[in-house]
Amino acid sequence: MKTYNTIIILITGISLYSCNQNSSKEESTLIFQKGVKIENNNFTGNAYLEMLINSDSINRNSVGSVTFEPGARTNWHSHPNGQIIVAIDGEGYYQEKGSPKRILKKGDAVKCPANIPHWHGASENSEFIQIAITSRVSGPTEWLDAVNDKEYKSDE
Amino acid sequence: MKTYNTIIILITGISLYSCNQNSSKEESTLIFQKGVKIENNNFTGNAYLEMLINSDSINRNSVGSVTFEPGARTNWHSHPNGQIIVAIDGEGYYQEKGSPKRILKKGDAVKCPANIPHWHGASENSEFIQIAITSRVSGPTEWLDAVNDKEYKSDE
Repeated sequence: MKTYNTIIILITGISLYSCNQNSSKEESTLIFQKGVKIENNNFTGNAYLEMLINSDSINRNSVGSVTFEPGARTNWHSHPNGQIIVAIDGEGYYQEKGSPKRILKKGDAVKCPANIPHWHGASENSEFIQIAITSRVSGPTEWLDAVNDKEYKSDE
Repeated sequence: MKTYNTIIILITGISLYSCNQNSSKEESTLIFQKGVKIENNNFTGNAYLEMLINSDSINRNSVGSVTFEPGARTNWHSHPNGQIIVAIDGEGYYQEKGSPKRILKKGDAVKCPANIPHWHGASENSEFIQIAITSRVSGPTEWLDAVNDKEYKSDE
């Protein structure tokens, strides 16, 4: 019976160790640092920015990883050269003025057309991590009104 | 003794089930499709491209996810507006002409300067997944010689 107890303890130990190994790997799937909390008035809710690449006079793209907490979103805004969004994790929303909002999941990529007001952010119940690739060839982002709760929740 | 056998079988079953749950989650951490095998002569070894965004006349950036098998790499090449590389998974190398090669791990971002010959690819023992953000504002990529084994293995 003592042998059986030892076997049970061993199996349990090995299982716990091996599952822990897996879950460490799982935690390490976060690709980018969360970055710093965005404190300006162009967002609703809590969002964080990790700048990856700054634009310069030759390559005028900036690249940043943005983490939106559930319910957080940008204001309506537009870009004179458009913007590219690549969804990295969680579930997000993307909406262009006059079109229904779209659900974004990891691996989805969206090109926001030039000068078309749009917003993006997390869904109500999920964090959303995205890369934003913003071209500044023809000028900076134009920030517009906040996305109110009615707009955020609407499916139209 | 029968009871102990049953307990051992139960514990083993639960462990396997629970570990399987974890490993399914782990598999789902791949963000992009692997895409299609790159068949042109600008690469050594096996690499795959999943195009995420094509450039157009207003937003002249293309965005693609490239998966390099271990040892695979681009030829030397340069871009008239530079290029941005974001490491997504595995371990890769990046080298500019005249500088030591750098190791890239997930979350690392590199801006390749305009008109500077460089190459990137996987390390010898790891796959490497990267996003390439290529600006075509001033023209297409200029492809150069293959990275030979001596260059690939050198630390200088």
